[in-house]
Amino acid sequence: MQRGFAAALGTWRTKEGPLARSLSAAVREAVVDGRLPAGTRLPSERELARTLDLSRGTVVTALTLLRDDGWLHTRHGSGSVVRLPAQLTERTTPWSLDRGGAGDADLDLTLAVTAAPHEAYLAAVGRAVERSAALLVDSGVATPGLPRLRTLLAERYTRSGLATRPEQILVTSGAQAALTLLLDHLHTDRRAPVVVESPTYPGALAILRRRRARLLPVPVTAAYGWDTEHLAETVRGKGPQLAYLIPDFHNPTGAHMTAPARAAVAALAERHALTVVVDETMRDLDLRTPPRPEPHLCGARVIQIGSASKVLWSGLRVGWIRAGAALVRELARNPLQAQLSPPPLEQLIATELLHEGEGDGLDEVLVDRRSRLRAQRDHLAGLLTETDWTYTLPDGGLSLWLHLGGDTTATELAARAAKRGLAVSPGPLFAVDRATLTHHLRLPFTATPDVLTRAVGLLR
Amino acid sequence: MQRGFAAALGTWRTKEGPLARSLSAAVREAVVDGRLPAGTRLPSERELARTLDLSRGTVVTALTLLRDDGWLHTRHGSGSVVRLPAQLTERTTPWSLDRGGAGDADLDLTLAVTAAPHEAYLAAVGRAVERSAALLVDSGVATPGLPRLRTLLAERYTRSGLATRPEQILVTSGAQAALTLLLDHLHTDRRAPVVVESPTYPGALAILRRRRARLLPVPVTAAYGWDTEHLAETVRGKGPQLAYLIPDFHNPTGAHMTAPARAAVAALAERHALTVVVDETMRDLDLRTPPRPEPHLCGARVIQIGSASKVLWSGLRVGWIRAGAALVRELARNPLQAQLSPPPLEQLIATELLHEGEGDGLDEVLVDRRSRLRAQRDHLAGLLTETDWTYTLPDGGLSLWLHLGGDTTATELAARAAKRGLAVSPGPLFAVDRATLTHHLRLPFTATPDVLTRAVGLLR
Repeated sequence: MQRGFAAALGTWRTKEGPLARSLSAAVREAVVDGRLPAGTRLPSERELARTLDLSRGTVVTALTLLRDDGWLHTRHGSGSVVRLPAQLTERTTPWSLDRGGAGDADLDLTLAVTAAPHEAYLAAVGRAVERSAALLVDSGVATPGLPRLRTLLAERYTRSGLATRPEQILVTSGAQAALTLLLDHLHTDRRAPVVVESPTYPGALAILRRRRARLLPVPVTAAYGWDTEHLAETVRGKGPQLAYLIPDFHNPTGAHMTAPARAAVAALAERHALTVVVDETMRDLDLRTPPRPEPHLCGARVIQIGSASKVLWSGLRVGWIRAGAALVRELARNPLQAQLSPPPLEQLIATELLHEGEGDGLDEVLVDRRSRLRAQRDHLAGLLTETDWTYTLPDGGLSLWLHLGGDTTATELAARAAKRGLAVSPGPLFAVDRATLTHHLRLPFTATPDVLTRAVGLLR
Repeated sequence: MQRGFAAALGTWRTKEGPLARSLSAAVREAVVDGRLPAGTRLPSERELARTLDLSRGTVVTALTLLRDDGWLHTRHGSGSVVRLPAQLTERTTPWSLDRGGAGDADLDLTLAVTAAPHEAYLAAVGRAVERSAALLVDSGVATPGLPRLRTLLAERYTRSGLATRPEQILVTSGAQAALTLLLDHLHTDRRAPVVVESPTYPGALAILRRRRARLLPVPVTAAYGWDTEHLAETVRGKGPQLAYLIPDFHNPTGAHMTAPARAAVAALAERHALTVVVDETMRDLDLRTPPRPEPHLCGARVIQIGSASKVLWSGLRVGWIRAGAALVRELARNPLQAQLSPPPLEQLIATELLHEGEGDGLDEVLVDRRSRLRAQRDHLAGLLTETDWTYTLPDGGLSLWLHLGGDTTATELAARAAKRGLAVSPGPLFAVDRATLTHHLRLPFTATPDVLTRAVGLLR
């Protein structure tokens, strides 16, 4: 046990600061890493001191720090047991975005992601395990998706106004996997240009750049939305066959495409044989009360992709493609599909989370997430009233898209923040040319209010 | 409930044959599909008859069939409960390879895969769930792999003679995902040729063809192994920078590369700046008692890839790359990696399966799987003694590579078998040119002895 404990901690001594503090930080990291599972009983103070070659006093101080922060539960006479602090399991902020409590780690606000909805997720895993026996006797090789999951996703589309049959759904390991598969299938002439928004999601840019696709940017701003005139000119002038758009709480601006603009894009696509891949990853993160979703951007030339990653958790690698049944059949035969299809158990967990009427369904999780995110968004907005940075408060999504006033560029600001331990994403990361959007900065509101307060303090 | 039950069955009436038989088949399919979880209580016979619009007699007959085959457990007074027959959970054969018991479905011997090691897998899932709390509070975004999993995989390599540090391991969603990621990274000039074996694994051929890579085949036979002379000439003459080889229980021949041949390949690679990707997916499926593994094919220019898919279960989508730490760091930054990285929970399950000393570890599973596969291999070999088909009995792997005597081509034989309800993979599927190897046929011995008996009966 002692040797296992020391091994689980790793090389914690190399860290700076007092030994007791380093030791307590190492224990926290080991718990969060899964190297020390919650429930692990620690060796006695005496044994710890001997094994780790520390004074008894250092060990006692480290354990006290852990106990005070809720990482250790001590019952008199039966030693100390590692546990996960309640505040970690009851919120939307991932641990990795919030090492603030430790005082010895950086703040990383480059990711706009949430922690898993802890209880609902574990309940869904439990139900999935109960129902997994039938899966386990099968081959486990990739399919277009578990029948029940395809049905639930199709029903979800149908309920939100877009009639869909299960055969129109292909389950993938996320929206990026969906985009990769679609590009492999539809973007076969590598010199063919692809329309994207500017700014747009860096994950999509990375995939498109890796294919060396020529990118045709169409401006989007939070205040005025999509420049559909520019889009129409681009389509007429350059003849692209493919576009990638994020009409629902666009990443990073938070813009939301109006119903007339959606209809115009669909009509343009039809007229010019332009296939539009619509990323609906943020669609369910409508922060208005009640949510007022626009109709889906849809049409004969439109393919929807979605994902549970932003709505539920990035670690649940389940996304999907909604397309014509014929295209879905073709995609299912693409050699890449086998690798971009999530494991059966993961699909079963997603099925359980989507399944209505068993409690802890997606809709119930969403009500809670939306209210937390709304509070965090408004807290962040409040912090920014004293700056000369401007933004349009988004109706949904996970981040604010700031415009910095004065001569400061976002790249300089991000570099200065990095020196003070805060990582943020400057505008050029979201730019097609990597060089413009220098006065913009994306600030996700997926962190807790106190982390946001510290982050804005560091930025100013 | 009744409505749910009818919905779970799907459109079973379209099937041929007597209604009672179709109904019982539909219930079995629904259980195996996960639409009717084991433990589901059926409506009463009267309710079933009414809901499904059948005579009471038909329902009783269908339920009796299900009960006789172990799919239904009836306790007097409390109705019937769906369950999974014991014989399904206690063997290596996936359900989808063996619908023989039903008498109304095809035999599919095109997949060489096994069912999950049921108990060990579920135990590992249980332990993973217990330890998942820490993962769930984190962002869930892709990493190079869970630290503990990378450590266990590195230790496994080190124990088998190839010293490895955790930083040299990148966890992927399988060996094909590993190959895809490596090709995306290393095969950047799409006109550059790639060396492959002939025959070779169709999954790898599909990935390479999708990239339109020019393939340079090197002959491998079960009897004589690798034509290293031909390989050396190809490398000297055509200057390829990349090769994909399966030295351990080569798929489909079962050939096992000798230690001197391994050394020769590694030396050739070093001399000619040839990067060799070595697929070790079958390495642990050594069917000799005791196993006598050759040293790993290794060297400065050699990258190993592996997977739990053949050894444990295809549904556990966990594989890996072993390479230099610098290359692993680069690969982890490739935009494809995020999509080819398995979900954290799946990695935790793999970790628990690999972890020694908690029972049900991989080695324990392997002892059992090897003995079942050995028996199935020998059963298949026994069935073939009365044919004029020849083969070299492989020391490991999952299939026999048959040479058909006479004028019969494998493609004709496969076509005839398909008409009789048996799907098999003819030689050209494994050929670089898709046209040769016409007298070869791959027969996996992952099916149960009685299915193998029926399959060989149909083939002859």
